[in-house]
Amino acid sequence: MSTAAPAPLLFDAGRLQALLERIAARIGARNVVTDPAELAPHLEEGRGLYHGATPALLKPADTAEVAFIVAECAAAGVALVPQGGNTGLVGGQVPFGALLIGLSRMNRIRSLDATDLTVVAEGGCTLHQVQQAAAEKGCLFPLSIASEGTCQIGGNLSTNAGGTAVLRYGNMRELALGLEVVLPDGRIWNGLSRLRKDNTGYDLKDLFIGAEGTLGIITAASLRLFPAPRQRTTTFVGLADPQAALALLNRLRNVAGDALTGFEFLPDFGLETVLKHVPGTTRPFTGAHAFYVLAELTSTRRDDDLAALAEGVLAEAFEAGEVEDAVIACSEAQSQALWKLRESLSEAQKFEGGSIKHDVSVPVSLVPRFIEEASRLCVAHMPGLRPCPFGHMGDGNIHFNLSQPLGMDKQAYLETWEEFNRIVHDLVATMGGSISAEHGIGILKRDELPLYKDPVAIALMATLKKALDPADILNPGKVVPPV
Amino acid sequence: MSTAAPAPLLFDAGRLQALLERIAARIGARNVVTDPAELAPHLEEGRGLYHGATPALLKPADTAEVAFIVAECAAAGVALVPQGGNTGLVGGQVPFGALLIGLSRMNRIRSLDATDLTVVAEGGCTLHQVQQAAAEKGCLFPLSIASEGTCQIGGNLSTNAGGTAVLRYGNMRELALGLEVVLPDGRIWNGLSRLRKDNTGYDLKDLFIGAEGTLGIITAASLRLFPAPRQRTTTFVGLADPQAALALLNRLRNVAGDALTGFEFLPDFGLETVLKHVPGTTRPFTGAHAFYVLAELTSTRRDDDLAALAEGVLAEAFEAGEVEDAVIACSEAQSQALWKLRESLSEAQKFEGGSIKHDVSVPVSLVPRFIEEASRLCVAHMPGLRPCPFGHMGDGNIHFNLSQPLGMDKQAYLETWEEFNRIVHDLVATMGGSISAEHGIGILKRDELPLYKDPVAIALMATLKKALDPADILNPGKVVPPV
Repeated sequence: MSTAAPAPLLFDAGRLQALLERIAARIGARNVVTDPAELAPHLEEGRGLYHGATPALLKPADTAEVAFIVAECAAAGVALVPQGGNTGLVGGQVPFGALLIGLSRMNRIRSLDATDLTVVAEGGCTLHQVQQAAAEKGCLFPLSIASEGTCQIGGNLSTNAGGTAVLRYGNMRELALGLEVVLPDGRIWNGLSRLRKDNTGYDLKDLFIGAEGTLGIITAASLRLFPAPRQRTTTFVGLADPQAALALLNRLRNVAGDALTGFEFLPDFGLETVLKHVPGTTRPFTGAHAFYVLAELTSTRRDDDLAALAEGVLAEAFEAGEVEDAVIACSEAQSQALWKLRESLSEAQKFEGGSIKHDVSVPVSLVPRFIEEASRLCVAHMPGLRPCPFGHMGDGNIHFNLSQPLGMDKQAYLETWEEFNRIVHDLVATMGGSISAEHGIGILKRDELPLYKDPVAIALMATLKKALDPADILNPGKVVPPV
Repeated sequence: MSTAAPAPLLFDAGRLQALLERIAARIGARNVVTDPAELAPHLEEGRGLYHGATPALLKPADTAEVAFIVAECAAAGVALVPQGGNTGLVGGQVPFGALLIGLSRMNRIRSLDATDLTVVAEGGCTLHQVQQAAAEKGCLFPLSIASEGTCQIGGNLSTNAGGTAVLRYGNMRELALGLEVVLPDGRIWNGLSRLRKDNTGYDLKDLFIGAEGTLGIITAASLRLFPAPRQRTTTFVGLADPQAALALLNRLRNVAGDALTGFEFLPDFGLETVLKHVPGTTRPFTGAHAFYVLAELTSTRRDDDLAALAEGVLAEAFEAGEVEDAVIACSEAQSQALWKLRESLSEAQKFEGGSIKHDVSVPVSLVPRFIEEASRLCVAHMPGLRPCPFGHMGDGNIHFNLSQPLGMDKQAYLETWEEFNRIVHDLVATMGGSISAEHGIGILKRDELPLYKDPVAIALMATLKKALDPADILNPGKVVPPV
């Protein structure tokens, strides 16, 4: 992890001023923001790891204005950082001296078709806005992440966002059918296909999805919708260990199939932390258990009996000694109360002092072994440490967070982050896992990449960056390790 | 369409001979095939559109040998065409003077894990082999296409194969988690991830999937599996027109959700052709209808009642006047008999003389309008023409085939192919569709691309080809239009 900000980019002041004037003449002076108070919320990264700096935030009104800005910046040799809702967790959206560009004025739903099951949304739409637009037409846009009220579609695409519904619906990549992108030289690629099948040449859209704004600026996207579920059942289960949770996942998946849309887990320390610090949360059953699972089933069928389906599988799991206790929500309110236990966890952890976080994945079958070994190794390295591994078991995605030992100085604790990176990421590597399951690389993990990723892959990344953005105009210094 | 083969590539005979000797020394002389009889089946394309030529077919035993071959070819400046099962429909696998490389000796299932729901298969495995390996462990590998006994995984990936299960499971692209690829300079990229979530940098695998062997040779892949369905129900429905079929699709999808795994259509002319020419086929119900749909529901649940689910939806559709007649299969044998009506269509068409074929897609909501307008325009252009539009309505994918007028000379008919391309593809373009939904570009449609694809997209394709294969070693002249 490198939380040290890179050296700021500096541009010739006169040239920069002339550039900003040309841009202001095109997009309007009020959309070239230089007021420090207005800039401030765009420069602070959510966890306080980075403090950015920029001469101005540019707010174009449409794709042509984005193209104009990029072309002008390319001509002037001035770098540009695209920023969505500024909710990224790896610093990819933070400018260090470059100009900032934001699409908040480009927030139209251009079209939505419930028969095609597609929506075309501009990059500045919030995720919540797209979810709402789909719901109004009886459809589901399934991407679901904690920041959905603030984060933007352009950012969701650029970071290939994940979340709690990936098990059934996939990451943002799998939800995108087509893109409109402004390239690093200002050309516009119109790839807003609404097709499920299109084999006319190379797959260009996936090059930009997950590239964190280093290869192009995503100005609009055509996204997949699904028929809205008519019902859901949420169950909260107490278990002896992660291995039992994996057994339950297999049981549920093999019988419920696609009806299983979520399979989240948290440890006892996590549940206790939530119950202690988050008002309105209550223990779902009397006893405590070492490990908990929240599973969700949904169905579009009219007279489906999901509760019976869940009960049947849970009864077998009890029989097999895999499950210790379980509750099935009987109402939407009960479902929401159970989800709150899982979703409040990141927030609640803040009350337990410093938290060193890892967002990793391993093959699903190795999740229990990973949790146990990583916890053991980390506690051995720092006795008193309180591991809080939670996340999306169905995707093999573990948020391996470590709360500080009680009484330790927070800053002193956070300064050991690198030591834990080495322990956790080394273990991930031996299991064929990923050091960034859903958060991306940005600047935070850029210099970790060469330690764990195939060097041919890194060389290919550099080749692609150079081919598409030879002047290094878009989000320089992010994602691709320096050669 | 350009069925004219490109001018053959010619290499200095002495240099070529020396290259083949170096390769033979490494992979064994018997794996450098030059015998014309043995080469012949690799040079004929299935529809007889192309006749290829090659100095030799190279058959490496493992990835290191593939890398050796590519590196040697790159050093000698000799081009190389990768070929899978030679079932491609656009000539992408045909060599015109270049060396041919085939992975039939690399046909191992490297691993299969029913908990992770992943299989790692080498590029030379047949699709059927992977389906079988999955079935043996109670899993499903859902890709299903007519050539599955012959086609190979490397080719399925390189052409992003589609088929009848895309509605629920997606194209080959959506089934791939990771790849191992030999690059045009002989480097090996090891990207055999078995992870559902991995956001560590650019998405490299999707660059090679669908690139038809022009950017790298896919030597192995990590693929997604699904829990095997415990039951299926097939229904065959007679309707008045394509619009009614679309209404039925919506009804089924909104209620059955993920249980709907196939939604195929064919016209009366298609069914009559099958009944006339394919032994063992019988009419599913007494009367004839203008249009037919085959829909399939599957479920992993133990005591699901899919027939009742289908009956409920069909009853409503009858009520609404959308459906004229329907039959629901009561046994696996009946299911298979219904599928045979759909799957025999391509074969049966051959008995009706020349067939001019198009593999197009439009947004799902426009399928009925496309079928009606395209049929009308084509018949107006050539009275007596017999349109046979069939395919995958749920994906918006129409195989818009045109059987020749009765009594017309076959060759004279086929010579009008270009005229129908213009009519059909122009209409596709006005509807935001694709001129190649699932077959790819190869050489057959390469020169159509500039007529219909965004020029920025074509320029980007050329940029990528040049960045990854600057010496044009892999499958030269395919997919990317000459600048």
